[in-house]
Amino acid sequence: MAKDKQPRKPRAETPKGFRDYFGADVIERRDMLAKISDVYERYGFDPLETSAVETVEALGKFLPDVDRPNEGVFGWQDEDGDWLALRYDLTAPLARVAAQYRNDLPSPYRRYAMGPVWRNEKPGPGRFRQFYQCDADTVGAPSVAADAEICAMLADALEEVGIERGDYIVRVNNRKVLDGVFETAGLLDSEYLEDNLERVGIAIRAVDKLDRLGEDGVRAMLGEGRKDESGAFVEGANLALWQIDHILKFANAKRNTASETLATLSKLIEGSLSGLQGVAELETIAALLAAQGYGPDRIVIDPSVVRGLGYYTGPVFEAELTFEIFDEKGRKRQFGSVAGGGRYDDLVKRFTGQAVPATGVSIGVDRLLAALRAKKLERGEAETAGAGPVVVTVMDRDRMADYMAMVGQLRQAGIRAEMYLGNPKNFGNQLKYADKRGSPIAVIQGGDEAAKGVVVLKDLILGAKIAENATLEEWKDRPAQVEVPLAELVSAVQKMLAQ
Amino acid sequence: MAKDKQPRKPRAETPKGFRDYFGADVIERRDMLAKISDVYERYGFDPLETSAVETVEALGKFLPDVDRPNEGVFGWQDEDGDWLALRYDLTAPLARVAAQYRNDLPSPYRRYAMGPVWRNEKPGPGRFRQFYQCDADTVGAPSVAADAEICAMLADALEEVGIERGDYIVRVNNRKVLDGVFETAGLLDSEYLEDNLERVGIAIRAVDKLDRLGEDGVRAMLGEGRKDESGAFVEGANLALWQIDHILKFANAKRNTASETLATLSKLIEGSLSGLQGVAELETIAALLAAQGYGPDRIVIDPSVVRGLGYYTGPVFEAELTFEIFDEKGRKRQFGSVAGGGRYDDLVKRFTGQAVPATGVSIGVDRLLAALRAKKLERGEAETAGAGPVVVTVMDRDRMADYMAMVGQLRQAGIRAEMYLGNPKNFGNQLKYADKRGSPIAVIQGGDEAAKGVVVLKDLILGAKIAENATLEEWKDRPAQVEVPLAELVSAVQKMLAQ
Repeated sequence: MAKDKQPRKPRAETPKGFRDYFGADVIERRDMLAKISDVYERYGFDPLETSAVETVEALGKFLPDVDRPNEGVFGWQDEDGDWLALRYDLTAPLARVAAQYRNDLPSPYRRYAMGPVWRNEKPGPGRFRQFYQCDADTVGAPSVAADAEICAMLADALEEVGIERGDYIVRVNNRKVLDGVFETAGLLDSEYLEDNLERVGIAIRAVDKLDRLGEDGVRAMLGEGRKDESGAFVEGANLALWQIDHILKFANAKRNTASETLATLSKLIEGSLSGLQGVAELETIAALLAAQGYGPDRIVIDPSVVRGLGYYTGPVFEAELTFEIFDEKGRKRQFGSVAGGGRYDDLVKRFTGQAVPATGVSIGVDRLLAALRAKKLERGEAETAGAGPVVVTVMDRDRMADYMAMVGQLRQAGIRAEMYLGNPKNFGNQLKYADKRGSPIAVIQGGDEAAKGVVVLKDLILGAKIAENATLEEWKDRPAQVEVPLAELVSAVQKMLAQ
Repeated sequence: MAKDKQPRKPRAETPKGFRDYFGADVIERRDMLAKISDVYERYGFDPLETSAVETVEALGKFLPDVDRPNEGVFGWQDEDGDWLALRYDLTAPLARVAAQYRNDLPSPYRRYAMGPVWRNEKPGPGRFRQFYQCDADTVGAPSVAADAEICAMLADALEEVGIERGDYIVRVNNRKVLDGVFETAGLLDSEYLEDNLERVGIAIRAVDKLDRLGEDGVRAMLGEGRKDESGAFVEGANLALWQIDHILKFANAKRNTASETLATLSKLIEGSLSGLQGVAELETIAALLAAQGYGPDRIVIDPSVVRGLGYYTGPVFEAELTFEIFDEKGRKRQFGSVAGGGRYDDLVKRFTGQAVPATGVSIGVDRLLAALRAKKLERGEAETAGAGPVVVTVMDRDRMADYMAMVGQLRQAGIRAEMYLGNPKNFGNQLKYADKRGSPIAVIQGGDEAAKGVVVLKDLILGAKIAENATLEEWKDRPAQVEVPLAELVSAVQKMLAQ
């Protein structure tokens, strides 16, 4: 068997957990990120693009996320023995940059970053090992004016990409208030602190899931624990009933106006310095936002927002889309969170020993894209990103120069156009190609048309509609095919495209 | 020494051979690539974004470049034992995609791709381990109309990004003509073919360097060899004098018009079937380009273009910028090549066993950016990308909401603006910050101004000019500082920015 002697052919496969993006998907994401960039730049944020590769030392290797402490990175050893790895987020590179260039960067430093990050996780449905992040952070600004600014910017960015006012809400809370709640619940007493910090961690993540678990679920997690979806028992924080009630009062402290909410919170955390400071900060944020006209239709103080990550130290925020979509099981549900962030003060401390205050937001690129797609679908809008080109067919192989000249004219006029570059023998294949390309118009010129100095334009969109529900009247009314003088090619195509 | 007990702090360093891009550099590249995308899309090319990671198997691991056969990739072993690596170019992923999706993609498939690639090379001055590539390829089109189209598209793309007509030239040649030259030089006789292929390789690379080495240098490389810049002796192709003359006649065959050049080539390769086919293909390309109005001021047939890479099989092309710049040593020289490509027919053969014709171009992103920068400098244009924001200073810590409202108004009007977010105590620091940000205007409102309902606008650009060469007249004529009613903040800033 001579065949066996051949070396095995490599498999043409996307590596497990990675994806390829084609045409419209690339354009859609690019256009969305361009709109977000516009807003970020208007707010004075400068783009930063670090390389995909960092030293493992600078990266700190693991995600600072207590929910997933063992998530890995893709790493390898350099020929010098240094370990390098792909970045797992955009915050670790910012920390490195903020430390490395601390004498050159403006302070405060507003920067935004957009790009892929990599996670060495087990891939699953909808979970990929490379995905986009889109972050904006302000480094070196202790004032909560920086947090307020980011909330306003987030609202503007959502509107800029096409989420209408009323379809989203930015919720703001403060970790210091949460600390005040735990303090007044007796969980931060120094005597049992180590033991209690674990309970506090469980409690934070439980409140973070209020939406998903419901009040009963959270109550169970604050108490003895609960069975999760898989039936496995998850140990709770084992708090006393009064502590559970206290924490739930906090999570449900949202009232109709910011001032009522803040008054409710103040009462709850009476006696906690940290808690009162947190409430004062929220007051400042509310005032700064009100001064710019960002009312509760866009940004609200909401104590139920706590954000899972352990490193937040002050204000935290989350943008939620409030319109309903159908989930995989056909049930209506709110679209949910598309962005979140908050204040964290240990950004560069690992490198310099010096605490530098920072605050930032991260937009979930894929989730926001999915939301925009859902909205488009709802409005019955056709797919416009990456619309197909006008296809100039090749009827006569010897007159390629003529066809090329037609394509050239169309392109010069800014019209997306192609000449068919495959084997022109079979004309049916050319129309099949035009169909696959989503082409709106096929341009045809055989020998007869050339002799008459005309071209035939075939309206492929109308043609497809007629083929779908052909009534003779419609066909007569607006023929799917017209003959025009060659000199009028561009204007006739423009006219047909505008219909 | 208590200090020693502390764990060593990680170094905040960009890994060796990698770079960070800040602000204007990111924007400049993004804007350039957006313009190139526009042109590519108008030509019917669709974007493709593959992941950074490929299996080493799919990648083929090494560059198909005979000049650098040992260049490596950044690779690591997956937990499943599979080897993964970062892509080293955008062609290898295209080959994988063209094979993997061959039943779904339109054929011919026009695709463009832009993004970083990684090379595990020793970093050097100006040589980085991550850099951008920007490619467009047509897969599955045997006709040289596809090559002609790419040449026209390349010319359009250069003009779109700001290289004026006359400042660039796209040169086209054909490897088949080169084959014909080697054939008529007796170098492709089957008897000594193995021995001669090495000579042919050296000869191709020598002709490719005609610009740099000059005729004498190429002559030496076609003969016994020469000492390179470092003084090391480089072995030549050891061809006979008549063979050297024959090859140099080919390299110098460019005449005033395409038809004269082609006639000269025809004579040179008389008797070589491959050579004649190559000349015929060039004739077709010239005719197709002429039909679209791409004359020799934009695209020329030039036999001296051979392109170093061994895998080209038909037309090859190169875009050169013809304007002069000063090199590091202050000498005037032509800017040189910024893009190149050609036809290669083994794209997916590795995967499927089936030869698929392809042709494509790659634009050197960093070189083209450098060219645009040089042009801007020459025209004396100020840096506009990422222009600094208007800075609203904080005179009174208790009136942050007022300042934030001003910033909000400016941003709503589309003006890039910031409130100073650092410690406002020292006003000098705020102005230093505005300076570092390249801010055009500082907005100032102290207690007195607030009482009067006015703001002061400080023209920082004019201020800097006055400080540079202060004549009293200019100062009187156009004060660097104006007081305007708060209600006119936006219009006054717009007016000052427009000056």
